Amino acid sequence: MKKIDKNHLAAMGKIERLNLVNSCTGYKSANLIATKSTDGVANVAIFSSVTHLGSNPAMLGFILRPATVQRDTYKNIKDTGFFTVNHVFSDIASKAHQTSASYGVDVSEFDAVGLEIETKVGIDFPFVKGSPVQLLCRFLNEYEIAENNTIHVIAAIDAIFFEEHIESTDGWLDLGKANVLTVNGLDGYCLPKILDRFEYARPNQETKSMLK
Amino acid sequence: MKKIDKNHLAAMGKIERLNLVNSCTGYKSANLIATKSTDGVANVAIFSSVTHLGSNPAMLGFILRPATVQRDTYKNIKDTGFFTVNHVFSDIASKAHQTSASYGVDVSEFDAVGLEIETKVGIDFPFVKGSPVQLLCRFLNEYEIAENNTIHVIAAIDAIFFEEHIESTDGWLDLGKANVLTVNGLDGYCLPKILDRFEYARPNQETKSMLK
Repeated sequence: MKKIDKNHLAAMGKIERLNLVNSCTGYKSANLIATKSTDGVANVAIFSSVTHLGSNPAMLGFILRPATVQRDTYKNIKDTGFFTVNHVFSDIASKAHQTSASYGVDVSEFDAVGLEIETKVGIDFPFVKGSPVQLLCRFLNEYEIAENNTIHVIAAIDAIFFEEHIESTDGWLDLGKANVLTVNGLDGYCLPKILDRFEYARPNQETKSMLK
Repeated sequence: MKKIDKNHLAAMGKIERLNLVNSCTGYKSANLIATKSTDGVANVAIFSSVTHLGSNPAMLGFILRPATVQRDTYKNIKDTGFFTVNHVFSDIASKAHQTSASYGVDVSEFDAVGLEIETKVGIDFPFVKGSPVQLLCRFLNEYEIAENNTIHVIAAIDAIFFEEHIESTDGWLDLGKANVLTVNGLDGYCLPKILDRFEYARPNQETKSMLK
């Protein structure tokens, strides 16, 4: 095993450190967060920090760096109270990555990268067309992480949209059936295949597969 | 697209809601967090919420539900100040899942599920033997998420250990080369394969693959 300690990390070049530290925590979710400005400009940006927080009530969180290109996303969420989360799937990988470029405030990344807006009846916020799982989220709170000045945004999941063929009888969404991607580091887009699904674990009882 | 809104979610059976909401945010990291009690009992439990927070200084966060079996992990981290993060890989998927069972405080999950402890010179905390990426983490802070009484634990990454063959020349760790897993929902263990890696995105410049 190779060891890189904090002194080594501090002395490392910026790009190498970014690549190493971004890949050392494991695979990440790949989501496009879409918002709308008060002027009606639709914004979309890729995020790899969307994390489940709880099921009842349904909540998620994600991390923002307000000093970067993500500031449009933050401003729109604060101004309107809502955003959508759209899973990245294999057909749109390169377009999803391109949303990380630093476009101007008045530019819609949808147009700039060639992603299509999907509108839904009764919802005044943009979704990403074709995305197999889409969430309508409502801003609840934010926690500033004082240790590095990032913001942990907390949101309620007000509605879940998904392609029906990926739903299991027990509610589980089989993301592999929709070619949903995961991210390795900053820029590695990966396609997972299911290896196994296990039953609820209990002490002194063998781990049981649900698939075999 | 099927739509499940918040009223439908609230009325749903508990298991179905757990499965749906846990899978609707996308793929998650699969990590074993190992700790040691002040009595010397090694504890290990699976987490799917470990998220990169920043690279300089290197930091991560994860979500704890103190009212569940994860309370040993929390107590040990608060008592000792340290924990280790160990990537789940294909050979240990079922053992990793089994750590989610509710074992007693004086039971080491390492023994109960058949995972081996790896000790490292100069570090007084247990790692999971065979895990291809291992992090030594130091507790920095915690933020209580008032909306659902979970805790967001913030930690510094003091050292990164990894199998040398997965390191790229630019610092990126190719997790696929070590069969690192990702989790779909509560219990679906998936093996990702790299689809593409893209260069840093800039406006008005075509998205470029680093692999092709």
